[in-house]
Amino acid sequence: MGKRLDGRRVVVTQADTFMGPDIEAVFSEHGAEVIADTRDLTAASAAADLIAEAGHVDVLVASLAAVNPRKAAHQTTDDEWREMFAVMVDPLHRLVGAVLPQMIERRQGKVVVMGSASALRGMSNWSAYSSARGAQLAYVQAVGVEVAPNNIQVNAIAQTFVENPSYFSPEYVATAEFKRRVEDVPAGRLATGREDAQLALFLASNESDFLVGQVIPFAGGWVV
Amino acid sequence: MGKRLDGRRVVVTQADTFMGPDIEAVFSEHGAEVIADTRDLTAASAAADLIAEAGHVDVLVASLAAVNPRKAAHQTTDDEWREMFAVMVDPLHRLVGAVLPQMIERRQGKVVVMGSASALRGMSNWSAYSSARGAQLAYVQAVGVEVAPNNIQVNAIAQTFVENPSYFSPEYVATAEFKRRVEDVPAGRLATGREDAQLALFLASNESDFLVGQVIPFAGGWVV
Amino acid sequence: MGKRLDGRRVVVTQADTFMGPDIEAVFSEHGAEVIADTRDLTAASAAADLIAEAGHVDVLVASLAAVNPRKAAHQTTDDEWREMFAVMVDPLHRLVGAVLPQMIERRQGKVVVMGSASALRGMSNWSAYSSARGAQLAYVQAVGVEVAPNNIQVNAIAQTFVENPSYFSPEYVATAEFKRRVEDVPAGRLATGREDAQLALFLASNESDFLVGQVIPFAGGWVV
Amino acid sequence: MGKRLDGRRVVVTQADTFMGPDIEAVFSEHGAEVIADTRDLTAASAAADLIAEAGHVDVLVASLAAVNPRKAAHQTTDDEWREMFAVMVDPLHRLVGAVLPQMIERRQGKVVVMGSASALRGMSNWSAYSSARGAQLAYVQAVGVEVAPNNIQVNAIAQTFVENPSYFSPEYVATAEFKRRVEDVPAGRLATGREDAQLALFLASNESDFLVGQVIPFAGGWVV
Repeated sequence: MGKRLDGRRVVVTQADTFMGPDIEAVFSEHGAEVIADTRDLTAASAAADLIAEAGHVDVLVASLAAVNPRKAAHQTTDDEWREMFAVMVDPLHRLVGAVLPQMIERRQGKVVVMGSASALRGMSNWSAYSSARGAQLAYVQAVGVEVAPNNIQVNAIAQTFVENPSYFSPEYVATAEFKRRVEDVPAGRLATGREDAQLALFLASNESDFLVGQVIPFAGGWVV
Repeated sequence: MGKRLDGRRVVVTQADTFMGPDIEAVFSEHGAEVIADTRDLTAASAAADLIAEAGHVDVLVASLAAVNPRKAAHQTTDDEWREMFAVMVDPLHRLVGAVLPQMIERRQGKVVVMGSASALRGMSNWSAYSSARGAQLAYVQAVGVEVAPNNIQVNAIAQTFVENPSYFSPEYVATAEFKRRVEDVPAGRLATGREDAQLALFLASNESDFLVGQVIPFAGGWVV
Repeated sequence: MGKRLDGRRVVVTQADTFMGPDIEAVFSEHGAEVIADTRDLTAASAAADLIAEAGHVDVLVASLAAVNPRKAAHQTTDDEWREMFAVMVDPLHRLVGAVLPQMIERRQGKVVVMGSASALRGMSNWSAYSSARGAQLAYVQAVGVEVAPNNIQVNAIAQTFVENPSYFSPEYVATAEFKRRVEDVPAGRLATGREDAQLALFLASNESDFLVGQVIPFAGGWVV
Repeated sequence: MGKRLDGRRVVVTQADTFMGPDIEAVFSEHGAEVIADTRDLTAASAAADLIAEAGHVDVLVASLAAVNPRKAAHQTTDDEWREMFAVMVDPLHRLVGAVLPQMIERRQGKVVVMGSASALRGMSNWSAYSSARGAQLAYVQAVGVEVAPNNIQVNAIAQTFVENPSYFSPEYVATAEFKRRVEDVPAGRLATGREDAQLALFLASNESDFLVGQVIPFAGGWVV
């Protein structure tokens, strides 16, 4: 069958947290050359630096996660609010902006945004986090349409209930709050990180060349 | 029948642009006492100042519009990007945060966000604008769920193709680009500002007390 | 302000069950002349007969409810399956087909379909019912776009958790199953039938002339 | 890497039309044992007969296509209307009902419904067809949630603009109507049938075990 990402150069951001490690592992198994970056992307030039250093990039996996303050809307400070956008939204704009020119020139490229289902279904005490995630998804829809004629596919995974140390640590999974939340998931379990990486793989490969500007929920049926 | 907003104290932001004037007119006709504010809300304390000066607020109509840069994603500067969020997103968080405590205390209140359908359907050269609008809609979904148990209803209108000097000026309406765009609108026309204000009126009145965290497209069928 | 449906001739189907009585009451208060029909609409000619007898119809409120079998997919018989479509779907096609010619000729008219949120979010043991409700909503989207250029507006309410004897009887509301279900509703309560009728009123009046092919959830935040 | 469907027994319906041939080809390449059925499924016992003859079924690909009458809503006859449901909806209920018991017993199984994006975005003269397609998608959402706890995954592809002899024949692709329609597709082209089959493959394989009741648009950005 061949390897599904044979020889593709893939940049993965925040590669040591959130979905980064599983994506690196699965993509490597499928033949990708993964540039697993771990730099802080909040600095203004960081995204451009990363892409410049990476050189030829076939696929950008924009994995950007922040620590959810989990506070009521009126108790969320301006700093907490801005942090969500500084970590998850502004770098997305800069990363995509930095990588698009080479993709447009080659008329080929993929961007996979590791987004969140929290932007699709409201939850209490999530307003800052969900709002930043909503910005990501609308961005994907707009840029996806914009660059589709250049044979570039930009899509997002809107995930939740996926095992990862950032959001579903073993400690959190042991709490009553978590057990109550998972009752609301038709699949009745967390996804593994590798399962999530399989969807990212599908979106990074040429198997999905007709999908553009698409947001795919990955949430065990929690959103449909 | 009585007036539908009899005696309600309604704050309308950016009251002299975008949908502000029509909302003020229609709401006043229906008995509301409209506090038509026109201050620049990008300053950190502006939202809190506005609510403090307004005193008792039954309804907040968050009308926040920015000038869409209309540029390709990779040509949108950081300043243009941040401007969208500084004008349309950060003030929404601050306005709602400032008005919620009194509404929670009284167990009554309404927030109507004048959002955009551009967050629901991608368009080329709209990434910065649409992304900020997406943040607004996800915010409404999250806060809407959060404060619903306090008998506060937060909802949004996701509009487009509404006559207003900010986005559909007579000059723009005369262009070939506009005529091509409106062909894609099943209703075949722009809405008037008063029509839009009628939906805002419905969401500001007690007729919609069961709607929470809802995004209602108002786009002549352009999104469904 | 004037009455919002002054002199409008409104046909309401299944007027003695489901949302019928509340719609008749609220619409009449707002000046409508309500033709409250109660015939069985499963007969092939029933819809055409109704419209022919009604004569001039400004607004059709298609309220069509069936008894949900509440069975697992593989235990739902063909008869139970077909019953859902015979009661809720086929008559919708016939009613709209019968009323459109006069509305197209006058270039004016409204159709409000009292649909269900069960078509927007899956539930166990609802497959037959939800599938028929899904047919209704897709129908509204298609016909809404089709007749919009004729100045006819076809829209739907996708409701659930509304007090009505058909689906939320006092007996059912007293059950543990119901109490568990309502915990999942951010608004924390059932809507009254009159609240629901207020949304139908908005969609039946000229206040919503720019809404076409739209499905508006009415579910206390259960779907957004 | 192994073959992605190694040894899986897959039933594909309407295997000689619509997406059938491409699915059979791609799935076979990936190691599936494809039972390519071509019987007329409108007869009441046909679905049960098919599953009984097939024996052990790991994956059901419900590919059900009818000839779209393409007529205005009020000109669509009852027979044309019912044909859509008889061909695309009733057999889906029967097929899934027939295959679920063995899947529930084994606590393993996949159903992939080849649905249509026409249920997600309205088009003129499509009401009968789109309504039947809407019934399919709501069915998938409901059954997907229902059987998820049994480790069975039911999902749908909501496709359009895919090359296939049923809907996009070479003759139709040469028409002005088609050329105008494809301008509205951000990807600017039809998908190949093999591309579509790649998404079906993903949903038929264990790579998508966390997706349940999900409707995935496959439309080149025409719906997002």
